[in-house]
Amino acid sequence: VRARLPAPPPGETWVGDDAAVLTGGLLFATDAMVDGVHFDRRWCTLADVGWKALAENCSDLAAMGGTPIAAVVAVVLPAELSGAGDALLDGLAVAATAFSCPLVGGDTTSGPTLVVSVAVTGHAPATGAVLRSGARAGDNVFVTGALGGAKAALDQRRAGRDPAPELVARMVRPAPRLMEGAAAAAAGATAMIDISDGFGADLGHVLDQSGVGVRIVGACIPCHPGASLDDALFGGDDYELCFTAPDTDRVTRAFADAGLAAPTAVGSIGREPARVLVTDDGERELPARGWEHTVG
Amino acid sequence: VRARLPAPPPGETWVGDDAAVLTGGLLFATDAMVDGVHFDRRWCTLADVGWKALAENCSDLAAMGGTPIAAVVAVVLPAELSGAGDALLDGLAVAATAFSCPLVGGDTTSGPTLVVSVAVTGHAPATGAVLRSGARAGDNVFVTGALGGAKAALDQRRAGRDPAPELVARMVRPAPRLMEGAAAAAAGATAMIDISDGFGADLGHVLDQSGVGVRIVGACIPCHPGASLDDALFGGDDYELCFTAPDTDRVTRAFADAGLAAPTAVGSIGREPARVLVTDDGERELPARGWEHTVG
Repeated sequence: VRARLPAPPPGETWVGDDAAVLTGGLLFATDAMVDGVHFDRRWCTLADVGWKALAENCSDLAAMGGTPIAAVVAVVLPAELSGAGDALLDGLAVAATAFSCPLVGGDTTSGPTLVVSVAVTGHAPATGAVLRSGARAGDNVFVTGALGGAKAALDQRRAGRDPAPELVARMVRPAPRLMEGAAAAAAGATAMIDISDGFGADLGHVLDQSGVGVRIVGACIPCHPGASLDDALFGGDDYELCFTAPDTDRVTRAFADAGLAAPTAVGSIGREPARVLVTDDGERELPARGWEHTVG
Repeated sequence: VRARLPAPPPGETWVGDDAAVLTGGLLFATDAMVDGVHFDRRWCTLADVGWKALAENCSDLAAMGGTPIAAVVAVVLPAELSGAGDALLDGLAVAATAFSCPLVGGDTTSGPTLVVSVAVTGHAPATGAVLRSGARAGDNVFVTGALGGAKAALDQRRAGRDPAPELVARMVRPAPRLMEGAAAAAAGATAMIDISDGFGADLGHVLDQSGVGVRIVGACIPCHPGASLDDALFGGDDYELCFTAPDTDRVTRAFADAGLAAPTAVGSIGREPARVLVTDDGERELPARGWEHTVG
């Protein structure tokens, strides 16, 4: 995509990060959710879909260290769901309040498949937006929260089981880590991304764009209760943040000062391009593998 | 929709105008185009679809008197069109250059139907965004350009004929009236809207939101060559602007100073709620009728 567009002026970042960064620190991002691709209506309500559509967009702002300004939504609503538009809107409205990201406009149109496209604007932090490209050798790698819960819930659903409520919540009502993203920026984070496609894939984007390698310690990965290490490494849809920063004490202090649970250090950035995962079985390559969206 | 969302703070306008107006004069809008609903791929290329998706969003900024900052796009691309994403992007990129509205980010996902959702940000004019709600008795009603061309082209296509190239251009490559919108704002426009649904329907929104009536002189309506008065009054997709302003001389001067063709005065706002269309056959009610999007 970047090859077909002009280059941005100095100080701006366009395609290729979680959100675009424009003059004056304006952030701008969009993400769409398609029925049968990004969600399965057997396993979530339309209010859940509305919530998640805003959550994943606010997560893109969080991954820059940003603060939401506002959201707009374009909805394609099939005739058989025309009565369900209010439920979708209610889910969006509840999320808008929860994330302090007011829904200020939109467009509803008829069409064959339910599609919910949200766009958000935000403010970059005063210290500048945290890009994917700034990781440096010697930085530590951190993740917020616990990983793999959404994938574990999806797998249980697919197997015909009823996941525990806290696993279901990870899948259908993810919370964007806005305060954590701001704390990471304040703590000198050098690169950041949200874990929407899976830790392996998303960390891979940071490594690609920063031109560095990594050494990840499997035993340090915070697996969500009910999730395996494989779910945590390669499951998507968690909307936790992964960031790199040189000073662990400063990170710990910034999160504590903001009243947030400390992020988990899971490895370190190396100068060599190798991407190493250390487990009890020894060392192997950490694949830049993620989660293909196929109804979750 | 407005009833399900909180009220905006003073000085902001959320749902219900062409674009939302936020603190600091930030404008924000979104519009989606759906294959088979808003366009028919027999009659346009995917580059045309990309152009038009950005054009209709920039037209929403124009209708506030605004200037584009940037756009993002979310594309749902069916497998059978996966090779055509570049053509779509090229149409968007050409339009982005033409409208000085850089495309700074996006999201492409697979799905059963082609959907192109664009969102745009812009700056309100220094004198404040021009809303739909400000028309006052005594104001004149103006339209830019000529109306009905897109509808005439669509009707000819539907009848199996080949419309003249300038009619086809009205349908597939509409130009948002950004300079005209800015000139109208500078000339003291009290209300403005873009004519995307048809003059009757869109003027109806201004009258509803301003609480006024109107008297339109049919003979003054600037019909596009090849279009009937009915096409001009009720055809949609023209993306011309309709605005109200008290001082015709000031409007004429502002457009001339900007090197723009003068807009056409087509009637006047009245205090009474009546909506009157005057033609050679006498007076009748101007219906708030527009154009149902069914493939154009």
